[in-house]
Amino acid sequence: MNKTVLLILINIFILLSYNQSDASEKESCFSCHRQETPSIVSAWTSSAHAMAQVNCVECHGEGYNSDHSSQHERIVVEAHVCAQCHDKAAKGHFAGKHGISFRAGRACTRSGMKTEENAKGCKDCHEKGSLVPRQEAECSRFLAQSPEMQRQGCLMCHMVENRCDACHSSHSTDLAIARNPAICGTCHMGPDHPQYEMWESSKHGIMFKQKGVKYAPACTTCHMPEGTHNVSEGITMGLAGQAYPQDVREKEREKMLKICSKCHAKTFAAQNLADGDAIQQQSLALVKEADRIIRELEKAALLLPSPSDRPAHPLSGQRLEIGSQMLYEDLSRVEALFFRMKKFYYVITYKGVFHQNPDYAHWYGNAPLKLTLSEIRSEALLLKELKLLRDRINNLSDMGLTGANAKSGSESDLLKMDLRKLKERFLKGEISQDDYETRRNEIFKKHGL
Amino acid sequence: MNKTVLLILINIFILLSYNQSDASEKESCFSCHRQETPSIVSAWTSSAHAMAQVNCVECHGEGYNSDHSSQHERIVVEAHVCAQCHDKAAKGHFAGKHGISFRAGRACTRSGMKTEENAKGCKDCHEKGSLVPRQEAECSRFLAQSPEMQRQGCLMCHMVENRCDACHSSHSTDLAIARNPAICGTCHMGPDHPQYEMWESSKHGIMFKQKGVKYAPACTTCHMPEGTHNVSEGITMGLAGQAYPQDVREKEREKMLKICSKCHAKTFAAQNLADGDAIQQQSLALVKEADRIIRELEKAALLLPSPSDRPAHPLSGQRLEIGSQMLYEDLSRVEALFFRMKKFYYVITYKGVFHQNPDYAHWYGNAPLKLTLSEIRSEALLLKELKLLRDRINNLSDMGLTGANAKSGSESDLLKMDLRKLKERFLKGEISQDDYETRRNEIFKKHGL
Amino acid sequence: MNKTVLLILINIFILLSYNQSDASEKESCFSCHRQETPSIVSAWTSSAHAMAQVNCVECHGEGYNSDHSSQHERIVVEAHVCAQCHDKAAKGHFAGKHGISFRAGRACTRSGMKTEENAKGCKDCHEKGSLVPRQEAECSRFLAQSPEMQRQGCLMCHMVENRCDACHSSHSTDLAIARNPAICGTCHMGPDHPQYEMWESSKHGIMFKQKGVKYAPACTTCHMPEGTHNVSEGITMGLAGQAYPQDVREKEREKMLKICSKCHAKTFAAQNLADGDAIQQQSLALVKEADRIIRELEKAALLLPSPSDRPAHPLSGQRLEIGSQMLYEDLSRVEALFFRMKKFYYVITYKGVFHQNPDYAHWYGNAPLKLTLSEIRSEALLLKELKLLRDRINNLSDMGLTGANAKSGSESDLLKMDLRKLKERFLKGEISQDDYETRRNEIFKKHGL
Repeated sequence: MNKTVLLILINIFILLSYNQSDASEKESCFSCHRQETPSIVSAWTSSAHAMAQVNCVECHGEGYNSDHSSQHERIVVEAHVCAQCHDKAAKGHFAGKHGISFRAGRACTRSGMKTEENAKGCKDCHEKGSLVPRQEAECSRFLAQSPEMQRQGCLMCHMVENRCDACHSSHSTDLAIARNPAICGTCHMGPDHPQYEMWESSKHGIMFKQKGVKYAPACTTCHMPEGTHNVSEGITMGLAGQAYPQDVREKEREKMLKICSKCHAKTFAAQNLADGDAIQQQSLALVKEADRIIRELEKAALLLPSPSDRPAHPLSGQRLEIGSQMLYEDLSRVEALFFRMKKFYYVITYKGVFHQNPDYAHWYGNAPLKLTLSEIRSEALLLKELKLLRDRINNLSDMGLTGANAKSGSESDLLKMDLRKLKERFLKGEISQDDYETRRNEIFKKHGL
Repeated sequence: MNKTVLLILINIFILLSYNQSDASEKESCFSCHRQETPSIVSAWTSSAHAMAQVNCVECHGEGYNSDHSSQHERIVVEAHVCAQCHDKAAKGHFAGKHGISFRAGRACTRSGMKTEENAKGCKDCHEKGSLVPRQEAECSRFLAQSPEMQRQGCLMCHMVENRCDACHSSHSTDLAIARNPAICGTCHMGPDHPQYEMWESSKHGIMFKQKGVKYAPACTTCHMPEGTHNVSEGITMGLAGQAYPQDVREKEREKMLKICSKCHAKTFAAQNLADGDAIQQQSLALVKEADRIIRELEKAALLLPSPSDRPAHPLSGQRLEIGSQMLYEDLSRVEALFFRMKKFYYVITYKGVFHQNPDYAHWYGNAPLKLTLSEIRSEALLLKELKLLRDRINNLSDMGLTGANAKSGSESDLLKMDLRKLKERFLKGEISQDDYETRRNEIFKKHGL
Repeated sequence: MNKTVLLILINIFILLSYNQSDASEKESCFSCHRQETPSIVSAWTSSAHAMAQVNCVECHGEGYNSDHSSQHERIVVEAHVCAQCHDKAAKGHFAGKHGISFRAGRACTRSGMKTEENAKGCKDCHEKGSLVPRQEAECSRFLAQSPEMQRQGCLMCHMVENRCDACHSSHSTDLAIARNPAICGTCHMGPDHPQYEMWESSKHGIMFKQKGVKYAPACTTCHMPEGTHNVSEGITMGLAGQAYPQDVREKEREKMLKICSKCHAKTFAAQNLADGDAIQQQSLALVKEADRIIRELEKAALLLPSPSDRPAHPLSGQRLEIGSQMLYEDLSRVEALFFRMKKFYYVITYKGVFHQNPDYAHWYGNAPLKLTLSEIRSEALLLKELKLLRDRINNLSDMGLTGANAKSGSESDLLKMDLRKLKERFLKGEISQDDYETRRNEIFKKHGL
């Protein structure tokens, strides 16, 4: 509160000693943008940036001119620009998952990391001279998309990695927007990780909406306590539940429990989070069972289609890829089921528990996780049954081809037999359609037809 | 504002010169409805209609009497009644998709278009004397439902075609309700076209909810600019992405860009919409691939069940129907998957882009669209594999039936062989159960048993 | 209003005549909990309980001491404690479905009903000495979960059976929270019964949110009229649409129509509810068709896997269980589809009608209900086709084994024939892998190899 008063006083002082050149410079932007994009101008005008005289050029840079014939230096303002003033927030951001992913090699394929300076980052992920990522990065799904879907589907969220306006909105930079849980929800929603929906329909979310953040936690309460921009604090596992070292787990868990304990008995909170840990492990075991089933099917060449008959995976080529680089396209049916288990239902099950939402944990997560595992097991049995039938037909066919050779019979029977045997070889794929037709003609000739 | 003041003054004048017969007439309705449906009466009383002395009979007509022994003339007030006063709005409504669909033949099966006057509309859709629609109309899904589901599932939304209260609510006719995006959402939600959910969880929706329509667009901002009731303005494609002529596309796109440009650089907005166009085409290509796979399966008689073994399609009979008249019932498995691709995931993918929601475009649309295509391809391979096995068994069976004839052997072997050959003909479906039993008895006789 | 004034006056009087021992007793709790769980203390302080001097011990009981070395008597406050003061509400609660389920035997497996007193309840559900429930109880899904999922997935909602704070929240016991439809939604949401989502996105929900409970119904308007805590009043069918006797149906329907009639013509409301009844019956018929298909497949031993090859069902053992005790795990594929039909789409279809939401009734309910039935029918045909192929291969194999015996031929042909015949017996599962290898060696010996 006192800080706000101070800020206002400072701003009044600044406004009184207003630098004329600044004003005219800003005016030169406004003269055009008041017509072109009036809402941007009015959003900025009522922003904290305007009060602090952070004008257009401070963020967008120079490099454009009054007759609009040249480009702006920076249409898009990246995090490092904001970091010039907001150093602490930026450091927090880059230390947590929101920022790390960008520097972990993931984004090289996304953000066209080409300059000399950025290229240094390659070694984080690649052996020298190799394109295969050394540490697993979830970018093949990105690589498999069209440029338009990359822009509209992937980067609309993954711009958070180096863009502050992903949460803070541009120009208005209104803290009420940045703190609104729904803004977190623009990315943390949907089939892959519906944290927003979980929270919103939990008792926490309902209490918050009715009575405010003093009565119940918003996203920031637990994930950005005391204004930290490191959103990974208090998180005890990596992406998809990847295990952290025990000491890191314990340290981070303790941080989260401190927050829970403001409202709940610590033993109660600890029990709930421990349940989440256990459920994550139990659910992962189901994912691993499905993983094993699919790898066995692949070994037995039972996947329809087989990876060797599909378009190449962007990183792994024509091999089975059901790890973190798994695609959601060009799969066999069991793999399509597995993708949903792994990326949707497994994640929802344990995140549902950690966000205190039994409906997500149970009905959106656990139930379809187990239903889909049943379907995968059932499909595997079907594919094995098909293989058994194929093997038996092959065996019978070989028996027929051998045994039938020895028989005597009428001329017409022998003709039919020759034709059937030829057809069987064609159906087994031993001879081509052309070959089949040529040889059939030869048989007719042989029988004097 | 001035308009409102004027309206109030006019109303005060009207109230002062209150027509006694009107009042008593209204009173005759109220005397009953204050008891029967008090909320209707109070809703109307606080409405703009009440202020303007648009009383019960103005909308509902005469034809009922004070002892309630006869029917009201119009229980339901259709759009043409509202149009008597709200001419401009009604014209806009009927020019756009909200109104057109009703007159495009679609609704004939829905709304019992039977009177002479309405029957003129038949020619819009049907050749003289033919029941086959000349232009595609999505009404077979309607025709396949029970009357109750038609009422509760279809017409609850499709009443918009000739009902203003679909959006404006009846009796209160509160503009705050009609302009509330959630009212649009009562129909524009759910698996087939979740435009409301897309918008609500997008940055547009969040900004709107927090700061109001001056800061971010509601549905009406883009789809009913300047109060137009032609909701198709600015739309560049038909239902399910059906292509418009290039000049229409360009004209309509320009209208939308004008709206976007109030807040965004026009080049930025144009790029986003162009991405939407490209993604619609890319997604449609996937739908078309699935379409081809299913038509091939049908040609090879591999669908389970085949269309000829199903209840007749309301318009196409016992033929494969996977076009705009496709049902969601009485399908084979690949078709059931295809229905979801086409009506749900394809639509969500491109509409997600046009409504600036990456989670819908990507995770609710693109991912399941591609997963389901994988499943369709995989199922097609399975069905072809089954057919190959069947063909090979047929071939082996024919070989066996031929070859085995020629053998010599013990009496018991010959009996078994005759029985197996007969069973094989039964399993192939060549002879009926009855026939099978009769002939089996004949074989026993032949072998003296 | 007058009641509130009276309450305040009473409280002022009570505060003035404040009992010192009460105050010190409360202080002894606070001395610790102001540090440990400050939000609990502040929630209680501003609650009606605080005003009425219902202090910590009144609900939590004695049994703890100032040095915190012993347990609290009651950490969890169950409904019977609340019932000491709130007798009428508790009676209503236990008469309706919220309370009945707990006493109907369902909860015995959930809540560890072990004490002598509780054990009397066993006879409600079990024959003496039998564990098989006499009346159907939906608890096998509970029994099949891990203790953690039971706590986080099942009991988080099913605590309503004997916990008032499930809806009223603990400590603050704020009526605004208890009456907020979103609180009902914490359990009445999601794939199994999304009543909250249906209502929220219906015209009722939108009107309520915009204009309040005087203009449109909240959950309590219809399901807790005049403050009753018997939430089953006005409901005309049991769980999953289970039929009530005709006279009960009519009595309960009349109650609901009385509520509808405040805003709607009774004939209109009656028609809508009758449509719901009809749609429930029509949808149930589809569920029953799928049920029949699965039972037939089971009879023909076509389920993959067969119940005899699965982990035992907690109540039914290794038998097919697709009734009310159906699990969502360890199923075959058709059963996994059926579970979704029965527990999700069927329920959504008719509840969507009763909650005036065409999108739920039609697109979330009816369409996937019928799509999934198509898939079940299609899968059944596939399994039957597989069986037919298997039968034909068996028949051909027997024919081959018989017929081939009689042939003469070269030594090499005879060796191959012996080997093929043996392999066929192995592929048919007649002999084990070990047996197969032993016998193969014998054949080699026989042929002098």
